[in-house]
Amino acid sequence: MNMNMHPEFLLNQIQSPKDLKKLSIDELTQLASEIRTLILEKDAKIGGHLSPDLGIVELTIAYHYVFDAPEDKIIWDISHQTYPHKMLTGRAFAWLDPDKYEDVTPYTNPEESPYDYFALGHTSASIALATGMAKARDLRGGNENIMALIGDGSMTGGVAFEGLNNAAIEKHNLVVVLNDNQWSIDENVGGMVKLLADLRASNGQAQNNPFKAMGFDYRYEAKGNDIASMIKAFEAVKDVDHPILLHVNTLKGKGYEPALQSPGTHHWVAPFNLEDDSPKFEAPAGPTANSVALDVIKDAIDQGQKVLAINAAIPGAFGLSDIKQNYPDNYVDVGIAEQESISFAAGAVKNGVTPVVFQNSTFLQRAFDQLSHDVAANELPIVMFVSASINGGSKTHLGNFDQVMISNLPNWIYLAPTTLAEEKAMLTWALNQKDNPVAIKKPARQIPVDGPVLDDYAKPAYQVKLGKDIAILALGSMYHQVGVPAAKELGATVVNPVSANILDTKTLDELAASHRIIITLEDNAVDGGFGQKVASYLGDRDDILVKNYGALREYTDQVSGKELLDRYHLTPKNIVNDAKVLLEK
Amino acid sequence: MNMNMHPEFLLNQIQSPKDLKKLSIDELTQLASEIRTLILEKDAKIGGHLSPDLGIVELTIAYHYVFDAPEDKIIWDISHQTYPHKMLTGRAFAWLDPDKYEDVTPYTNPEESPYDYFALGHTSASIALATGMAKARDLRGGNENIMALIGDGSMTGGVAFEGLNNAAIEKHNLVVVLNDNQWSIDENVGGMVKLLADLRASNGQAQNNPFKAMGFDYRYEAKGNDIASMIKAFEAVKDVDHPILLHVNTLKGKGYEPALQSPGTHHWVAPFNLEDDSPKFEAPAGPTANSVALDVIKDAIDQGQKVLAINAAIPGAFGLSDIKQNYPDNYVDVGIAEQESISFAAGAVKNGVTPVVFQNSTFLQRAFDQLSHDVAANELPIVMFVSASINGGSKTHLGNFDQVMISNLPNWIYLAPTTLAEEKAMLTWALNQKDNPVAIKKPARQIPVDGPVLDDYAKPAYQVKLGKDIAILALGSMYHQVGVPAAKELGATVVNPVSANILDTKTLDELAASHRIIITLEDNAVDGGFGQKVASYLGDRDDILVKNYGALREYTDQVSGKELLDRYHLTPKNIVNDAKVLLEK
Repeated sequence: MNMNMHPEFLLNQIQSPKDLKKLSIDELTQLASEIRTLILEKDAKIGGHLSPDLGIVELTIAYHYVFDAPEDKIIWDISHQTYPHKMLTGRAFAWLDPDKYEDVTPYTNPEESPYDYFALGHTSASIALATGMAKARDLRGGNENIMALIGDGSMTGGVAFEGLNNAAIEKHNLVVVLNDNQWSIDENVGGMVKLLADLRASNGQAQNNPFKAMGFDYRYEAKGNDIASMIKAFEAVKDVDHPILLHVNTLKGKGYEPALQSPGTHHWVAPFNLEDDSPKFEAPAGPTANSVALDVIKDAIDQGQKVLAINAAIPGAFGLSDIKQNYPDNYVDVGIAEQESISFAAGAVKNGVTPVVFQNSTFLQRAFDQLSHDVAANELPIVMFVSASINGGSKTHLGNFDQVMISNLPNWIYLAPTTLAEEKAMLTWALNQKDNPVAIKKPARQIPVDGPVLDDYAKPAYQVKLGKDIAILALGSMYHQVGVPAAKELGATVVNPVSANILDTKTLDELAASHRIIITLEDNAVDGGFGQKVASYLGDRDDILVKNYGALREYTDQVSGKELLDRYHLTPKNIVNDAKVLLEK
Repeated sequence: MNMNMHPEFLLNQIQSPKDLKKLSIDELTQLASEIRTLILEKDAKIGGHLSPDLGIVELTIAYHYVFDAPEDKIIWDISHQTYPHKMLTGRAFAWLDPDKYEDVTPYTNPEESPYDYFALGHTSASIALATGMAKARDLRGGNENIMALIGDGSMTGGVAFEGLNNAAIEKHNLVVVLNDNQWSIDENVGGMVKLLADLRASNGQAQNNPFKAMGFDYRYEAKGNDIASMIKAFEAVKDVDHPILLHVNTLKGKGYEPALQSPGTHHWVAPFNLEDDSPKFEAPAGPTANSVALDVIKDAIDQGQKVLAINAAIPGAFGLSDIKQNYPDNYVDVGIAEQESISFAAGAVKNGVTPVVFQNSTFLQRAFDQLSHDVAANELPIVMFVSASINGGSKTHLGNFDQVMISNLPNWIYLAPTTLAEEKAMLTWALNQKDNPVAIKKPARQIPVDGPVLDDYAKPAYQVKLGKDIAILALGSMYHQVGVPAAKELGATVVNPVSANILDTKTLDELAASHRIIITLEDNAVDGGFGQKVASYLGDRDDILVKNYGALREYTDQVSGKELLDRYHLTPKNIVNDAKVLLEK
């Protein structure tokens, strides 16, 4: 029942921030050490965000010492750095007791605690949210402190600037804490780096202070990892009657030497051995979706094509360090700035080079307008490699809406490979055409290496293996995982539709004429996706039933991918059962 | 054949920017005067953007005098201020000859001229596009000048900041021209206003210079409407080998006194009388979609509800000056910052007030992520009033994708009123519920004032007028415009589905069982919209045909709304004809 690994920890006495206020600086320092130990122990066991949390321990303790949460409100941006906050607000059990490691979610979560205000998994939004909270407080006649805490990495996102612009003219209390640990997910980029470096180097006295320029009161605290200093810094901004920006210097990864030596690889960690920092699991050998894509790009560059590999602060998700190190002229990281990543690509292709943008579906949501206005309406042939699938994890990080964003826009061709060979052929074709923006859905699941390919993916023909009665159109990752085994058991036809949004209407007509049922499977939300286009196209025929499978219209939070696939009937067993019921109709 | 109204104008001799370079300053000044005359004459006749173009005449002349377009490249942000640019690059005929007024589009347009690089109708993108162009130039080994010209209003958009952040570290030539005319579409807002005012007041010498802080070289030119000064200013930044920001002070509306007296109403103008600035057409009397919405909000405020009316720099589109003037505490304009507008609303509702965000579908594209992550995933009941429809105009301003963005996200309820009474009931209900984010589609067409309403719009029941064989589900504006007259002629059933994304499956089942054909009509793109959801839901029945009507997946450019409705068969005549064909099946 009680698996508390550290019953002796002072932390056990902290049930809420109120309990903090009784402690001495020495005790608070002891608490910081305990929190650090717990972050490392849990991350080593199950993985998680590491360096950001190690860096913000003292700041968090000081915040809760000085302010009166939950009445005073703070928005942590991004909330993957809230392990210390969670431990101090009644949720330490999820670090003390390994059996309860999964009982607390990794981001702020209003359903979990009154000390959390938003589920916040996309960066840079905190200041905008805080400006709204402050305005509402003013209208209500409230007087609580409203605070946004934002990292220097998050500051590169445009909505952070939109927030600053509006926060600067707030007439009452509003505090922006800039947690400057001198890193984004990877190295931070852009003019912001110099700007913050100058402020740090001058102890906040640098001549050109953009925050003062906008009208903020400004303070600098060099000792962000010293509890006494941070308490003073927070006390000085508590209950102010105007917008103020408190710039705090902290050390990302503090207290764990490997993280200090190699910050880029310790932002987020998979399970590792605490004694020597070695990973617990080896990466599988052989080609992967990433390695295939990178090989195509490197080959193109080696053959003289002017290619730019572009990403928005997530090189690790695609193994892009390979390009960064070996082809630095062909590599661009624009920071946490998805809008810029797409507009930048639009500018680049217009001026004669071939951009390939690496995107994560959940963050790509920030650039929907750029996909439409800057790229598609301008008919610019950028190439995009999109990591998207039905996956477990936080409701702030679902990767389901890729089709909503891409498939419904004019001009875009969205391709979904079923094998690594197909991925290679699609990407190679995309790099060599100049007619359309092309997105390729990164295979999210285990798929075969080899398979048939086409020469031209502009209007791809469906790849059909004939069976009878039922035709299963299984897009991308769903083809080998669900479509092929289900069809085999049913004796049904199985189809690789190749594209998520360009219908092969000729083959569809033939399939409709020769089958009783068409089933569509896709690794994303049904609404606005592939299957609904098929249903709409075949709607005016009365000789065919169409059934669409994919994610339901819901946010799921920390539900496993396996459970979700089962819930959405995206398993061979479910499809076989459902198909048999449909055949009875 | 030759309807040139000003054959004597010097402008007739300017076929390309090359011809400018031969002129004296006096002749260039004469040219400026002619261009201003032409802007006023054409705008008075057919309407258009006015003040921004009047303010940028001298700057544009100087640009083309100094730089060598189209090899040197400039991106005008936003491109509604390019009338002078168009006149100097071979397109003066569209101002000189009233018969050719419509022959040139109102935004930059690469299909129209090699001097235009992007169709740019959404603000703030220029610096991001330019960073991509500059990087591509570097990779190609080119050496042309790359320039982004951006207004002070456009500077409030987050992607402008993302652009600045990346532009500041460009290693070669990149010039950002900040055209500071001290206005956005309405009054500019935020900390940026003070920042720029300080720089202007100090002739560019203010202590806190954010551009220098980021690493830009910085220049200030106070006399942006003086050709000789602007020539010098541009010559000084031509061929520089590093990023530079040239801050130029210009006068919005220069040369037209009414525009100087009332800048807010002269940003864009409908046809007017040049002699006294009076409008040529009176606004119709009686309630409108805007007035109904504003009345609901004012009533709620008067009754003590804490309501915030929020918009992103387009108060004029919704008549919000009424709220701004009479309820200033309840009014927020966040600038051209759609992301902020939605996040701000999320923060406000979380802290106890009721936000109503006024959005234009085309600009709302910037905030897709906020609709999902900040609002829907956080289950926050913000209210949104969305101007969206199939309309003519520039391909950069299509309002078709509202359903793509809203209808496919979990938690959102998207309602489409068919009468003004229904609009009022929906908005009143939305303001008083706390369960879901609710969007209401602003009726774009003439609709009746009166009609039946529901008490609860959470799961609205379809409103059915029974006929036979065919059921026409006509959403929102399509109901009275197309659905009712077509159904009358066909003797068909006509249905008001009330919601764009919440299906009344019980009624749908009944309709499917009692009809042979279901037709869906919607005032937006078919892909990702209402009809495809109906087709998908009814896909597994073989006793009903479904046919979806709406906009095709295409960008149209300056095609009239009337022509588009006909193209998409969204007229009673088309639907009657199509229905008769379907009945023969």
